[in-house]
Amino acid sequence: MSNHGEMAASGHWGPPYLLYLGKPADALAIKTARGLAYWRPEWCVGQHRHPDCALTLGFPDMGFAQAKAKGADSMVVGTANAGGVMAPETVADIISALDAGLNVVSGLHQKLRDNADIVAAAKRNGRTLFDARESNRRIPVGNGRKRAGLRVLTVGTDCSVGKMYTSLALERSMRRRGIATDFRATGQTGILVAGDGIPVDAVIADFISGAVELISPAREDGGWDLIEGQGSLFHPSYAGVSLGLLHGAQADALVLCHEPTRRHMRGLSHYPLPDLAQCIEANLAAARLTNPAVKMIGVALNTASLAHDEAVQACRDISDRLHLPCEDPVAMGVESIVDNLLACCAS
Amino acid sequence: MSNHGEMAASGHWGPPYLLYLGKPADALAIKTARGLAYWRPEWCVGQHRHPDCALTLGFPDMGFAQAKAKGADSMVVGTANAGGVMAPETVADIISALDAGLNVVSGLHQKLRDNADIVAAAKRNGRTLFDARESNRRIPVGNGRKRAGLRVLTVGTDCSVGKMYTSLALERSMRRRGIATDFRATGQTGILVAGDGIPVDAVIADFISGAVELISPAREDGGWDLIEGQGSLFHPSYAGVSLGLLHGAQADALVLCHEPTRRHMRGLSHYPLPDLAQCIEANLAAARLTNPAVKMIGVALNTASLAHDEAVQACRDISDRLHLPCEDPVAMGVESIVDNLLACCAS
Repeated sequence: MSNHGEMAASGHWGPPYLLYLGKPADALAIKTARGLAYWRPEWCVGQHRHPDCALTLGFPDMGFAQAKAKGADSMVVGTANAGGVMAPETVADIISALDAGLNVVSGLHQKLRDNADIVAAAKRNGRTLFDARESNRRIPVGNGRKRAGLRVLTVGTDCSVGKMYTSLALERSMRRRGIATDFRATGQTGILVAGDGIPVDAVIADFISGAVELISPAREDGGWDLIEGQGSLFHPSYAGVSLGLLHGAQADALVLCHEPTRRHMRGLSHYPLPDLAQCIEANLAAARLTNPAVKMIGVALNTASLAHDEAVQACRDISDRLHLPCEDPVAMGVESIVDNLLACCAS
Repeated sequence: MSNHGEMAASGHWGPPYLLYLGKPADALAIKTARGLAYWRPEWCVGQHRHPDCALTLGFPDMGFAQAKAKGADSMVVGTANAGGVMAPETVADIISALDAGLNVVSGLHQKLRDNADIVAAAKRNGRTLFDARESNRRIPVGNGRKRAGLRVLTVGTDCSVGKMYTSLALERSMRRRGIATDFRATGQTGILVAGDGIPVDAVIADFISGAVELISPAREDGGWDLIEGQGSLFHPSYAGVSLGLLHGAQADALVLCHEPTRRHMRGLSHYPLPDLAQCIEANLAAARLTNPAVKMIGVALNTASLAHDEAVQACRDISDRLHLPCEDPVAMGVESIVDNLLACCAS
């Protein structure tokens, strides 16, 4: 976590965090804060909620000055707003947080630095603003050259099926086994969890694979990089990002992520989900361009919408059909996938 | 060509053109000007060369004021500079052109609008600057919905194998046959030739397919869009762009472009070129996601480096092997490819 703050051109940001929930439209609207609460609870000192907010992440409710007094460094704004505009009350709260001495980091589409009032408040308080969906780094064009180290990339049948959670669950499991591993973030929530990374869907198209080469450089310690995937080769809107990720990652191993109750590709009611076997074959074929030895080593099933019995049965069915370990990283863990990874790929 | 100037937020640009050659390092350095000279000679009133420039595009040499007097509207700067910096003498010439009353359009990586002296000169002369490698348009995320019209996309074994020339040759041939067709540009030279388009490799990664949907909208006249391809599914640096293009194009027909003397992928000496049959299969498989009826209808071979006999033989060999028409669009035309297109796909 030593990289905190290096991405911010203009100053430091990082934990301890105050999680800003505001007045969310639904549970999905707080997914960035939820990701931090789940994966880095030790970094979170409290949550800030609008009086009408019915959701909670289980942390103490506190105001901005109180959070600062409790040691918070930065407030995390992850609320997704309908309509793509930052709500006036969110802007007002961000300014209050800056006035209370907190830095502010955001996973919103709308940039903090595009709001003149927010920028002015940061300036007068000497605070840092960090937009996690934006990359200010100079990214080289990908070169495809073989680099040292071992890498796992999560791929998906669709967007939002659990690629970040799976990568982080692999990191946790492997670290517990004493294996050197680093989660490499490619999306806004992952970047806040990792304290570093590049939002690959926000880079210029020519530099997708170069961005992935940059965040997962050569490593000589025998350890693993666990690279967060994005999108799906079968999503007509975003497949270019997924292919650039596959090529830049030079993955030794892929894990396929899937949500078994999804009826159609996210946002596209006219596109069905791909067959799992077809999806595995397409990802392996594409990944072989930069690593001919790549293997598919497991399926991570997001069973949040299933009853426990159904979830266990769904994993068993997929495992039998594809001859791969299949688990829900959140509900069941990833031990059988890690076992297979180490059996297949460890040198 | 009625779209000229619509892309420029700040004013008009368009033909007639003065082609600026400057002092090019080699023939490749003037490829944008050469593309215009080849495909739109009727738009070019002259060329401007440094005294040391040994290359010519065959137009009368003239100064900036002289070009303006001959009716030139815009000067085209397409010279690629080594090192990625605009040479001081190029900057000085651009300012002189603006002072002479010409608008300036550029296909350079370096932006005209990033140079304060150039911007000041444009302002004081009331002239327009247009950077063809930049997109200022609001681009929606791709939606993959089937849209009316017929589309051909050129794909390649590699970058720089003739995809733009092939698309333009198809447009010329089909127009001569009385078929309504429009070249849809995706790169800086193509955009200057078409007077419109979006440089898809310069858009944000999430919007690649959306950009292609935007430049090739539904058409109800029974005519064809001929979409300029970019990169290659087999180029580790740029394949994401190529896949987004395939999905956004919803192509009814693909033409594979290839340069038979190329020893390795452009810029990557450690990557061999893909086998043609494998390349065709991979492109068709990816394209089927948004158009299951897509067909490969021919191979365009760039035989500029071969003797005539060798070129004819190379086309014959490929044609026999792949059971597809194979021609060099520049040296031989594209009539057999168009014949096959109309036989396979015309409704």
